[in-house]
Amino acid sequence: MPQTEDTNRRIVLAQRPRGEPDANTLRLETGPVPEPGAGKMLLRTVFLSLDPYMRGRMNDAKSYAEPVAIGGVMTGQVVAEVVTSDLDGFAVGDMVLAGSGWQDWAVSDGAGVLNLGAAPENPSWALGILGMPGFTAHAGLLNIGEPKSGETLVVGAATGPVGATVGQIAKIKGCRVVGVAGGPEKCAHAVDKLGFDACIDHRAEDFEAQLAAACPDGVDIYWENVGGRTLYAALPLLNAFARVPVCGVAAWYNLAGLPEGPDRGPQILSTILRMKVKMQGFIIFDNFGPEDYAVFARDMRGWLAEGRVTYTEQVVDGLEAAPGALNDLLAGRSFGKMVVRVG
Amino acid sequence: MPQTEDTNRRIVLAQRPRGEPDANTLRLETGPVPEPGAGKMLLRTVFLSLDPYMRGRMNDAKSYAEPVAIGGVMTGQVVAEVVTSDLDGFAVGDMVLAGSGWQDWAVSDGAGVLNLGAAPENPSWALGILGMPGFTAHAGLLNIGEPKSGETLVVGAATGPVGATVGQIAKIKGCRVVGVAGGPEKCAHAVDKLGFDACIDHRAEDFEAQLAAACPDGVDIYWENVGGRTLYAALPLLNAFARVPVCGVAAWYNLAGLPEGPDRGPQILSTILRMKVKMQGFIIFDNFGPEDYAVFARDMRGWLAEGRVTYTEQVVDGLEAAPGALNDLLAGRSFGKMVVRVG
Repeated sequence: MPQTEDTNRRIVLAQRPRGEPDANTLRLETGPVPEPGAGKMLLRTVFLSLDPYMRGRMNDAKSYAEPVAIGGVMTGQVVAEVVTSDLDGFAVGDMVLAGSGWQDWAVSDGAGVLNLGAAPENPSWALGILGMPGFTAHAGLLNIGEPKSGETLVVGAATGPVGATVGQIAKIKGCRVVGVAGGPEKCAHAVDKLGFDACIDHRAEDFEAQLAAACPDGVDIYWENVGGRTLYAALPLLNAFARVPVCGVAAWYNLAGLPEGPDRGPQILSTILRMKVKMQGFIIFDNFGPEDYAVFARDMRGWLAEGRVTYTEQVVDGLEAAPGALNDLLAGRSFGKMVVRVG
Repeated sequence: MPQTEDTNRRIVLAQRPRGEPDANTLRLETGPVPEPGAGKMLLRTVFLSLDPYMRGRMNDAKSYAEPVAIGGVMTGQVVAEVVTSDLDGFAVGDMVLAGSGWQDWAVSDGAGVLNLGAAPENPSWALGILGMPGFTAHAGLLNIGEPKSGETLVVGAATGPVGATVGQIAKIKGCRVVGVAGGPEKCAHAVDKLGFDACIDHRAEDFEAQLAAACPDGVDIYWENVGGRTLYAALPLLNAFARVPVCGVAAWYNLAGLPEGPDRGPQILSTILRMKVKMQGFIIFDNFGPEDYAVFARDMRGWLAEGRVTYTEQVVDGLEAAPGALNDLLAGRSFGKMVVRVG
């Protein structure tokens, strides 16, 4: 069922998953297209962003953001077209970045909506390299990771939108960059297309030994966006005064409880102590503000124009494909930034 | 066997322990008193400091300091008396702070030796509140913990020399201070003598619930010097942007391997992520320098003179008692700063 003018398809949270989301987790509903009143605009979703954090919003746990309510539309950023507008600053035909979630149509009063203009080049990039994932990589790396020329950085999910950007910025800053990714195709992409110095397949039996061999001078920055085996392989390699920006733990998002032992807590804490590690979690819009965003936007537009940063998207067609695509993303079966072409 | 003029008793590392040090770990040896040559001085140990870090030096593991060699004298800071001197700045009868280790006599060229003067008040305090433990508490709390008035701090080993000082400084800075200690006697001391707002016995069956109840506004600073059950009880209480200075993990120093599961790694990392926690390990003389020390010495001398900081020592008599006393300290059976009166 494609997007139409007279129906609003929306994907709602049917029940909270334990472990991996399944067929009972999300439900596609239809309803009328909402009517924008005075001082409002009607938005038609063109691209929906899929991001690992969405798994966390399905849980009913204390976190940095409200969970999605049962029966509520799944949250998500979209690039949308303004179809009608009773708002200054938003004209019919403009493309906007909005938080309308997993649905075809939405009414907005303009709050938190960024106007991308009438015909932006690469509108979907506002969901990736020029949006939240790019900003996350830039602000987190420069402010928490503090890369210095000659240092070694390890980054997991190396071909994902955050990991690929972290690694490329670190290269620009003069670091040796070692990626970690799932499978030879992604590893080849990280080295050949993104310019990483090495990329190790975390599915390899001797992954830990390969990672150590790729980091002969140890690790000064470990960018944490996966957790699991990658974290435990990186820990023993950390140098004195290493920095660990904690941006995500995607390998653990589907955990239904704590995994079997042994308990790695003592290893984590004693490494932090002995090696004087700074491990710092951050949530991009909580830790960083408009000044940081301005620096990011200036840097990134420049690097893209100069060809110093490469960006890869995986576009999935149709809103109904979003639930499966999110599971692919969480399982490491995506390649690059995943967006859904909704309309 | 007491200290004598013609024999040097020294305690050496006989073999590396697995788990708790036992009768085979350390060995008391005797030898001649060393002869100081030109440009040297002879030091007679008066007080030996016992500190949790000493357990780590017994291991042959990558750490922040060289391990003690098999057959080598156990490292440790001492307060000693200058018995002969061919060195400017050190006169016979002066008391000094030196790193001579677990022995009666030592020859020194003055490097790294601090002269305390001919008749210092409370000479042993240079091993505690006015020395390494006090400096650790002050520099780590103010620079990494960043206490703000009205915040809540939790500190383990609350009556130990670092914990007691951390808590008292946090009180001076306007924090609510909740200690964790082993047994009702220590908890009463923390509240009645140190002025903590509460102190919870980690041996209580409902310790986790008691700690949560004592922190109704959550925890802004968790001072990590114990690890184990205290860490796992504090983690769920951490507020957004909490700071966790990692100063020690004493509960885990005797671990011979990783403990049984479940693996708490996902809980640790996801807490750091969701709550935007900064967890930072530090080793006092690696992270902080003379400028920090000057601030500490000025602050602490003032607070002691004003009676705003209380200091408790446990003095053990005789070098031969040191191995057992170190085990007591590691097992939480000490009370206050433990020093050995050697001579």
